[in-house]
Amino acid sequence: MATTTWTRRHILSLADFTPEEYETVLQTAASFQKVLTGRTKKVPALQGKVVANMFFEPSTRTRSSFELAAKRLSADILNFSPGSSSLTKGETILDTAKTYLAMGADIMVIRHQQAGVPQIIAREMDRLNSGVTILNAGDGLHQHPSQGLLDLFTITSELDPTNPRLELLAGKKIAIVGDILHSRVARSNIYSLTTAGVQVHLAAPATLLPKAFLEIVDDRSKDKLHLHWELNPALEDADFVMTLRLQQERMTANYIPSLREYHQLFGITRDRLKLCHPNVKILHPGPTNRGVEITSDLMDDPNLSLVSKQVTSGVATRMALLYLIGINSD
Amino acid sequence: MATTTWTRRHILSLADFTPEEYETVLQTAASFQKVLTGRTKKVPALQGKVVANMFFEPSTRTRSSFELAAKRLSADILNFSPGSSSLTKGETILDTAKTYLAMGADIMVIRHQQAGVPQIIAREMDRLNSGVTILNAGDGLHQHPSQGLLDLFTITSELDPTNPRLELLAGKKIAIVGDILHSRVARSNIYSLTTAGVQVHLAAPATLLPKAFLEIVDDRSKDKLHLHWELNPALEDADFVMTLRLQQERMTANYIPSLREYHQLFGITRDRLKLCHPNVKILHPGPTNRGVEITSDLMDDPNLSLVSKQVTSGVATRMALLYLIGINSD
Amino acid sequence: MATTTWTRRHILSLADFTPEEYETVLQTAASFQKVLTGRTKKVPALQGKVVANMFFEPSTRTRSSFELAAKRLSADILNFSPGSSSLTKGETILDTAKTYLAMGADIMVIRHQQAGVPQIIAREMDRLNSGVTILNAGDGLHQHPSQGLLDLFTITSELDPTNPRLELLAGKKIAIVGDILHSRVARSNIYSLTTAGVQVHLAAPATLLPKAFLEIVDDRSKDKLHLHWELNPALEDADFVMTLRLQQERMTANYIPSLREYHQLFGITRDRLKLCHPNVKILHPGPTNRGVEITSDLMDDPNLSLVSKQVTSGVATRMALLYLIGINSD
Repeated sequence: MATTTWTRRHILSLADFTPEEYETVLQTAASFQKVLTGRTKKVPALQGKVVANMFFEPSTRTRSSFELAAKRLSADILNFSPGSSSLTKGETILDTAKTYLAMGADIMVIRHQQAGVPQIIAREMDRLNSGVTILNAGDGLHQHPSQGLLDLFTITSELDPTNPRLELLAGKKIAIVGDILHSRVARSNIYSLTTAGVQVHLAAPATLLPKAFLEIVDDRSKDKLHLHWELNPALEDADFVMTLRLQQERMTANYIPSLREYHQLFGITRDRLKLCHPNVKILHPGPTNRGVEITSDLMDDPNLSLVSKQVTSGVATRMALLYLIGINSD
Repeated sequence: MATTTWTRRHILSLADFTPEEYETVLQTAASFQKVLTGRTKKVPALQGKVVANMFFEPSTRTRSSFELAAKRLSADILNFSPGSSSLTKGETILDTAKTYLAMGADIMVIRHQQAGVPQIIAREMDRLNSGVTILNAGDGLHQHPSQGLLDLFTITSELDPTNPRLELLAGKKIAIVGDILHSRVARSNIYSLTTAGVQVHLAAPATLLPKAFLEIVDDRSKDKLHLHWELNPALEDADFVMTLRLQQERMTANYIPSLREYHQLFGITRDRLKLCHPNVKILHPGPTNRGVEITSDLMDDPNLSLVSKQVTSGVATRMALLYLIGINSD
Repeated sequence: MATTTWTRRHILSLADFTPEEYETVLQTAASFQKVLTGRTKKVPALQGKVVANMFFEPSTRTRSSFELAAKRLSADILNFSPGSSSLTKGETILDTAKTYLAMGADIMVIRHQQAGVPQIIAREMDRLNSGVTILNAGDGLHQHPSQGLLDLFTITSELDPTNPRLELLAGKKIAIVGDILHSRVARSNIYSLTTAGVQVHLAAPATLLPKAFLEIVDDRSKDKLHLHWELNPALEDADFVMTLRLQQERMTANYIPSLREYHQLFGITRDRLKLCHPNVKILHPGPTNRGVEITSDLMDDPNLSLVSKQVTSGVATRMALLYLIGINSD
């Protein structure tokens, strides 16, 4: 691994990531991607370190991805399952975190249904001078930085597999389509993509993309962000299309008339892709509702879909993140 | 490990297993059995490989057995738990499997309550030229090949501990007693035992052993298969008696009058065993309903019961299976 | 690790622990504490051994602590989760244990909501000459020996970090306050502390500390045990205060008028601590109901609270226990 000037202790949000930090993540992920195609697939980088996988909200994909990344860095893993936890006995989340700290956790990977939980734990860990680093694995509707970074690694690797870097994205157009209101993935991607100089076009029904959405973004990103309440203008000449999952389990009200109607208006189909750049590629963070946000044949078309590459990139990117914050933890 | 001519990519069913394949499994399992009695108990055979333990149907025994087998081959393990999975978010099973593939899984051990799921995943993995191998850990009422193979290893090892092989079983009589209709274990054992030249006698109430059952077996096996709707003719001079669990949780209708009546007619007791060969041994795949399909004292009699040996053989046999399909996976 | 004369096969209760055994545990835990502050944090002591973590009752803290302890001794771990287990299919607990035995388990760490389950399994394992050792991780209202031992290690280490030993406690006064009736932690601590020569003062409402409680203790301990139905006499000049969790989930009847009233009468506050010895330290086995048994600010005061140290000591103490019984298992 190249020497690095990484100084960030926790990875909580992409809102204040610098271009240099993005580049370091991309280069480190690329190195680990090579490790993963080799024979042993393991490095001793985090030997003796303990990674606590604290998923208060259920997850298979992200939890397994972090678990495998930690194993391939030779870390020891503690899995926390909320159902059988002390939270059911009245313990606070901070006390749960402090228990893992006292047990010897060096890195905590935290997912919680409430926005801000990883931040609160990080602040407490710093207050205690604990040396523990926090990695936000998705908090409520707020941020999912490792997903944003693996998407960035996926698309830059697609453009130059040997040297993924931000400048490859300058002037590109990327459409993000779907349930943006409920998407922490979109919120993270907006920061990474606009920092890389991408023109980001958001498209969704007005119920899933309120005008006020622009206000959550800082000025640096705002002028590269474009809102659409219909699909076509977002797709025109787009280099990449990111579709988002219709998070039916998060929808507390009737945001769309019906799944069929949503598909008619905002579903990605082969026909509609003709509006895009001829080399367009599609991303989806998964899990997918096939036939709703995207047709099944597009999902499976290896010439168009980067969905599998995203998952593969996820392990390498998470190895990079655990490595970068882990080698500096005490 | 001896050099082997193993060419089978997936282990989905014993229906088309060749005698040579059975012999290879028995010899490989015997080698690993020796490893397990040694001091370190571990071999580096699958170092760097990822085994995804995908148990869509709950299981302790089989899941733990595969997990321990994988660990002792030095593989990395990803455990999937359906309760907290993306399936609850509308993802298809094939997409779940493709996610594990993209994450780097080399072997998928799959249990599902629906027959055919491992086959469907295997076909998709082949279509994608993925190099992933599938091991069916029980699919609906269809097959449970690793159980059939561990039973075969248990009884041949019982007859010759130093050299378990098929010919030891030629001309033997084995009774399979109980809930055959709902037993994927019986379905797998019928193929392995008849291939080895065993006369297999099935005994159960007619509701649990329909006449049509013979039709699911191919001609090669049919002439060695005998159906009985009472217990005694199956037990007479039997060398081994396999009792099956009364799968109360699978019974969607009233198949038997009562547990007590079932035990009176088909329960294995010390008295009834007098009909068998003097050296008769009993097998049960577990978990057991003591006092229903078998009396408690027989279960615990080390001179009669092979139940513990089956569990021990399970780890060695599953090491053999993971090894045989794993060293050929890409 | 120093040579040891450890001969105990199972750790089920502290009722018959000898002073020599306590000293061996303290010295061994101190050695492992040093390992845990080093760089690699791992020793190969139990390589090839299988630790089955059988938590029939849900637990995060104790389960994770044993899991980490086992990993740092290089053992292989099998996790059992009751929800998806064969117990739901009618299997007995003894059969579940025998299955893990047959799979190759060397040490079983057992928690069960019923008192006596670890003892019953231990007796069966001995009857079978299995060589398996049992570690009681909490059985009903009976015993929680590893908690008693980690508490002993915590307070003796507090008094002499370089050489924790029993004599440090001779003549000390320790108050145990709270839900003693439902506390297996209290039951274990009473034995270790009185053996060390501590005067143990129990304080609780009469509903949570019946007079008959004295009868469960043997004569050796009885004269060092003092019962109080109000808080102050227990706190006066106390060197340590152990608060217990109000086990609301265990309370099958109305033991206290209200949480607020309980806190007024028996909650530990900064003001009340003035009654204690000036160097008093507080312990709590966790999880805590902040503001009920203890105020939040006391919990977090590093000059008063040993709660984090207890958790840290837990890993070292459990490494010691697994090591002491594990190196003698077959």
